[in-house]
Amino acid sequence: MTRTIDLNCDLGESFGAWRMGDDEAVMPYISSANIACGYHAGDPGTMRHAVALARRANVAIGAHVSLPDLAGFGRREMRVSIDEAHAMTLYQVGALAAFARAAGTRLTHVKPHGALYNMAARDAALADAIAQAVHAFDPALRLVGLAGSELPRAGERAGLVVAHEAFADRRYEADGSLVSRREADAVIDDVGGAVAQALALARGEAIAVRGGAWLQVHADTICVHGDRPDAARFAQHLHRALLDAGIAIARPAGRRAA
Amino acid sequence: MTRTIDLNCDLGESFGAWRMGDDEAVMPYISSANIACGYHAGDPGTMRHAVALARRANVAIGAHVSLPDLAGFGRREMRVSIDEAHAMTLYQVGALAAFARAAGTRLTHVKPHGALYNMAARDAALADAIAQAVHAFDPALRLVGLAGSELPRAGERAGLVVAHEAFADRRYEADGSLVSRREADAVIDDVGGAVAQALALARGEAIAVRGGAWLQVHADTICVHGDRPDAARFAQHLHRALLDAGIAIARPAGRRAA
Amino acid sequence: MTRTIDLNCDLGESFGAWRMGDDEAVMPYISSANIACGYHAGDPGTMRHAVALARRANVAIGAHVSLPDLAGFGRREMRVSIDEAHAMTLYQVGALAAFARAAGTRLTHVKPHGALYNMAARDAALADAIAQAVHAFDPALRLVGLAGSELPRAGERAGLVVAHEAFADRRYEADGSLVSRREADAVIDDVGGAVAQALALARGEAIAVRGGAWLQVHADTICVHGDRPDAARFAQHLHRALLDAGIAIARPAGRRAA
Amino acid sequence: MTRTIDLNCDLGESFGAWRMGDDEAVMPYISSANIACGYHAGDPGTMRHAVALARRANVAIGAHVSLPDLAGFGRREMRVSIDEAHAMTLYQVGALAAFARAAGTRLTHVKPHGALYNMAARDAALADAIAQAVHAFDPALRLVGLAGSELPRAGERAGLVVAHEAFADRRYEADGSLVSRREADAVIDDVGGAVAQALALARGEAIAVRGGAWLQVHADTICVHGDRPDAARFAQHLHRALLDAGIAIARPAGRRAA
Repeated sequence: MTRTIDLNCDLGESFGAWRMGDDEAVMPYISSANIACGYHAGDPGTMRHAVALARRANVAIGAHVSLPDLAGFGRREMRVSIDEAHAMTLYQVGALAAFARAAGTRLTHVKPHGALYNMAARDAALADAIAQAVHAFDPALRLVGLAGSELPRAGERAGLVVAHEAFADRRYEADGSLVSRREADAVIDDVGGAVAQALALARGEAIAVRGGAWLQVHADTICVHGDRPDAARFAQHLHRALLDAGIAIARPAGRRAA
Repeated sequence: MTRTIDLNCDLGESFGAWRMGDDEAVMPYISSANIACGYHAGDPGTMRHAVALARRANVAIGAHVSLPDLAGFGRREMRVSIDEAHAMTLYQVGALAAFARAAGTRLTHVKPHGALYNMAARDAALADAIAQAVHAFDPALRLVGLAGSELPRAGERAGLVVAHEAFADRRYEADGSLVSRREADAVIDDVGGAVAQALALARGEAIAVRGGAWLQVHADTICVHGDRPDAARFAQHLHRALLDAGIAIARPAGRRAA
Repeated sequence: MTRTIDLNCDLGESFGAWRMGDDEAVMPYISSANIACGYHAGDPGTMRHAVALARRANVAIGAHVSLPDLAGFGRREMRVSIDEAHAMTLYQVGALAAFARAAGTRLTHVKPHGALYNMAARDAALADAIAQAVHAFDPALRLVGLAGSELPRAGERAGLVVAHEAFADRRYEADGSLVSRREADAVIDDVGGAVAQALALARGEAIAVRGGAWLQVHADTICVHGDRPDAARFAQHLHRALLDAGIAIARPAGRRAA
Repeated sequence: MTRTIDLNCDLGESFGAWRMGDDEAVMPYISSANIACGYHAGDPGTMRHAVALARRANVAIGAHVSLPDLAGFGRREMRVSIDEAHAMTLYQVGALAAFARAAGTRLTHVKPHGALYNMAARDAALADAIAQAVHAFDPALRLVGLAGSELPRAGERAGLVVAHEAFADRRYEADGSLVSRREADAVIDDVGGAVAQALALARGEAIAVRGGAWLQVHADTICVHGDRPDAARFAQHLHRALLDAGIAIARPAGRRAA
């Protein structure tokens, strides 16, 4: 039986006249796209375009929901209330779902972005608010969160299928959290190193963490950063390395019947 | 056979800490609510709350889509492209639909707000973009626009059911357009006068326009402004006057099968 | 020798079509106005109008700088960087100063708003960033912050004149911090109680804090909340009570030579 | 006597995580920088950085004021009122001036951006509102506008020194307006052609317009677009060509005494 992994990438992160990433170049190498919903990036035209690209490439379409912070690209933690987190998740998921629906397709998953992702990994009540909003919108949506963190747990409490996410090019702490982007060694810039980490994750092998220990991370999906300067080349490289290792790249098993 | 008219009101126009209107007080007297979608008013929490109020009152829920202009309350014309109008309509309709869906109900209609409403009444290409976005999202949605204007025509071209809207408290020009809000006599402040105009509209009788002529306006729905200082009292008054005149107040005939 | 106290109020907190407070009604009873700068409230037209009202009433004009969060009214803590805090302070102070300058007057002070106020009361590095931005703009500006907190200390480090602020209608913890607005007894709703607390503060007497202890708070300025439903009446009441007690109401001693 | 021309460039047009242009690379070749003020581009950190770069390069610093439209990059016309235009000009000029002041320097000029630039070229009342706001802030500021249009006229009415601006790489209509960006030949992509047009403008010679006629354009300043993909190379080229032709590049004659 073949091992399978989902490769996901954060896309649709342009805004108005500003470009970020090269969605079209990355699309052939991934199986899931997390598309920005206007809160940290992504105006309506960009969202419509990213959905069209993903649909054409048969890539699963997910909502990349964020705190409302364009100027900070959703990377600054904000103390939002549980109620606000619930409402802003619904708002963004609904907005992206409209583009999917107009394109004759559907959303498959939701993944929080940036600071909201990190907060939801730590804060069970916040994670519950997000998970419940996703479930209220569509119980067949997968909830994607940091592997082993509060968010997948909240998804399961809410009755959702969850996907544990790991990172090819982010370094881990011994406790399974990510090394903060404020640290110099947060990102594995070296393509070879990042590909090696992704292969280990896909095979279920332990990875080296900061400080030298080894950590076992259960990964249903591996994130390829779309804002790396070499994102497309990196995605292509990783795609090839996984196939060469006999690992299939595919979105997680299909939606349950709606 | 009883005459029936829809009474609609623009609601959910608070934003963050700022209140506008008294949604709860108006709700008992109307049959359709047009709920702001975050572009001219309405943060996610306000939208969720307005949807809950409308659902409880059995009032039809519609998306009140706007140009992106919180500081101008969507009342300043912006030269957006056809593509932008299409995308921003989908975005807003989808966002509001998520709250309806999470509340176990559905949207019934879409009505542009403010400057977008006026532009779509005059500009067939813009009206088509809006109508096509609504149809792409859900062909069972009604499109509400200025009676006799380009927007209902575009709705029909797109295959949508349309509702021609007339105003109880706005004065008309002889050509069926509204007297601009920049004019002193744009609004019929006097409750008696506005109720009289609404009764005439509901009965299919001609109304007096600026300059003294009479105009026949076909009205499927009559707008009650929620931002009048006396909105709830006015809605109650109008509601009573219509019932006393033997006119039923009800949303337009139900959704077609989806 | 007469005792003197400054009465300050947060004003200019309308935004676009949304009104908040009644700036004109409060103005006669205060000596300093903190005017919103567009980040938590206050569009340019509102700022210009608030400056004009303050100038006419001979009330000192200050910039009420905030985190960028209209939807949250600047009340949600955001993890902004030191650099961001410095830059956003300059931006807002400069924007308000332009209206003062165009009106033939000048800013006298700067006071952070909401979450930024609270964060700057606790976080010395953040407080330094704000104080240094104020000093870089104009070393003659007073910096207003929570009495006894990090912000006045940072102001002194930066070489600014500072004003320690106390609250008539907010309850204190024993450590001099304010009871969180999430608590039921955060606000002293009762006008008599709030006036009594203000009188004690103005006289340099101890006030009762939560838990029953007494606290000495050094106050150069007392805040009158402009968003209380009864703000104008409360300000009038407090103004009268202070005068009756022989306490003069005046802005702190004038600007140093620029 | 040497002929002199000002070369200006629109800079500081990044926003948050999004980059636009390469300010540092263009700076050595220009004499005036128009820096975005947060309305169409430019967050506070970007503004501070652009001011620092300009100051270091001894480039004149101006406020590039815009309609409030980040998503549309200030390129969509909005029907703002005269009062709103006045207030938003003051707001933006003040915000940028704060960064100049904190850096120990001063603004020298103001130039409207994008749609506001085009509207102010045609609409005398709007142009007056902008000019009066600039004058109210600082009568020593130069007002930069389309050569021969309503904006320089309004500047003169307001008592400001004005600069007539022409474009190296935009094609003109026979009436002196710019060919709309919606037209295929709006921009002179070819570097040689754009340099030739700039040389003619700097020498006071006629330029070829759409349709084949020749037009005399009085130019005090020539705009180099910073958002061309080859902006720095183009600026370098133009800089060299002007010097080779014996034309000095310098900001217009210094500020009048303040």
